Amino acid sequence: MLELISEHRCFGGWQRFYRHASSVIGLPMRFSVFIPAQAGQGRVPALFYLAGLTCTEETFMIKGGAQRLAAEHGLMLVAPDTSPRGANVPGEADNWDFGVGAGFYVDATVEPWRQRYRMYSYVTEELFGIVTGELPGDARRAGVFGHSMGGHGALVLALRNRDKFRSVSAFAPIAAPSQSDWGRKAFGGYLGADTAAWAAYDATALMRTLREPVPEGILIDQGTKDQFLHQLQPEAFEAACREAGQGLTLRRHEGYDHSYYFISTFMADHLAHHARVLA
Amino acid sequence: MLELISEHRCFGGWQRFYRHASSVIGLPMRFSVFIPAQAGQGRVPALFYLAGLTCTEETFMIKGGAQRLAAEHGLMLVAPDTSPRGANVPGEADNWDFGVGAGFYVDATVEPWRQRYRMYSYVTEELFGIVTGELPGDARRAGVFGHSMGGHGALVLALRNRDKFRSVSAFAPIAAPSQSDWGRKAFGGYLGADTAAWAAYDATALMRTLREPVPEGILIDQGTKDQFLHQLQPEAFEAACREAGQGLTLRRHEGYDHSYYFISTFMADHLAHHARVLA
Repeated sequence: MLELISEHRCFGGWQRFYRHASSVIGLPMRFSVFIPAQAGQGRVPALFYLAGLTCTEETFMIKGGAQRLAAEHGLMLVAPDTSPRGANVPGEADNWDFGVGAGFYVDATVEPWRQRYRMYSYVTEELFGIVTGELPGDARRAGVFGHSMGGHGALVLALRNRDKFRSVSAFAPIAAPSQSDWGRKAFGGYLGADTAAWAAYDATALMRTLREPVPEGILIDQGTKDQFLHQLQPEAFEAACREAGQGLTLRRHEGYDHSYYFISTFMADHLAHHARVLA
Repeated sequence: MLELISEHRCFGGWQRFYRHASSVIGLPMRFSVFIPAQAGQGRVPALFYLAGLTCTEETFMIKGGAQRLAAEHGLMLVAPDTSPRGANVPGEADNWDFGVGAGFYVDATVEPWRQRYRMYSYVTEELFGIVTGELPGDARRAGVFGHSMGGHGALVLALRNRDKFRSVSAFAPIAAPSQSDWGRKAFGGYLGADTAAWAAYDATALMRTLREPVPEGILIDQGTKDQFLHQLQPEAFEAACREAGQGLTLRRHEGYDHSYYFISTFMADHLAHHARVLA
């Protein structure tokens, strides 16, 4: 049961914000969608955007500048929140890079996180079902992209769900989280100390055991002046793609940083990539 | 003396945030600029954007989606804050529609506001001088636009400074503030009870005594589902333009509201208008 929080006309379509009782997470969750005018003629491709640390379901819709392009391509945009809210796990809001606003798109397996912090199943199962059920997304034409923590999420979701997410791209993703401070903190907290369990959520590790490549290739944009570059390690993912024979377009942009000023600059190329694959 | 707070590469240009000691206001003020790559070859047209109630110098740069178009047209974008900050006038932060975040682009004339609340002179004199002096804006090719309270400001600044702001447009402006609750509260507070003094800051009143029309016309976009339509009164300004023989393109957009989802939808038309006039 979706509750419409607000809606706004935007580029000839609709910008909407929803709340619903999530069965996967056991709490109310919010997400946003942009529904292009083309949805009036039938289901449209659905492009999921996963945001980074501290963001919400609003961030991308406010800062990304993507609706103009989605309206042109006839793409539906979907942005979930970045974590459960109100789980009341002790200390969950004490860190900006773990807990609230930092769900890392994993299903936690250790206490006290395992009951609520299940963003992986939330996005791939519950939200995917809503978007391609009650909402006019086409289940056979879905893609995923994201930024930073959400770029990590996009790569992992696409590599593990080749039947669901046909197109994938990322802005400055945490591309080898098991080798970064952010990733080690999050995976240690949500998945426990046994690093063998981390590989299922590590794009570089997943690429090393890839069975089903992404035929249309993966697009990644990375700024050279990104203040978090040491956390992101695109070169590790690049090497894994090369070894696996996975097509990758990794573009390094001189002087660009980690902000939405960087993301919005290259947004058009990402939406064109997804529109082409999902056409 | 400008202090650069932050800068980001964006659409081949630079998004910058500055702080400086304002002599007009007597306090530190912040503003933002987008400087297009074309500024490397010499001064570029400068387009000032005045934001609405509760906004800051960041709002437009985050939500407007204008940098892409400014990069194409070679326009510099400039966005001041919407009021002084830290004036310590008693009660200045008690209302969202008066005081902090609500300077209304006037020079206050009554106590306790008159010393600090001088956004009109701040933008038209001090900021204009910085933008066309230390920064690469061309003083002979400047325009102004804005939203809501800032749309009011844009119309007033352009009508009273035909030598400075050659192009003007607005999104959902408070077009006849002397006749709206927002305007009456602000003008009564900043300018006093004598409504004769209000006319100098009322676009509709200014249009009734217009001596120097805007030859290229004025562009205004207005959503029909704007929740503040009763405060805006575009029809009053439209009638005054008709009587004055001032060219006006007032577009009413079915179903659009007062948000940046509305603004961003029609941003391209506004930048094209300014670029054409300022070419």
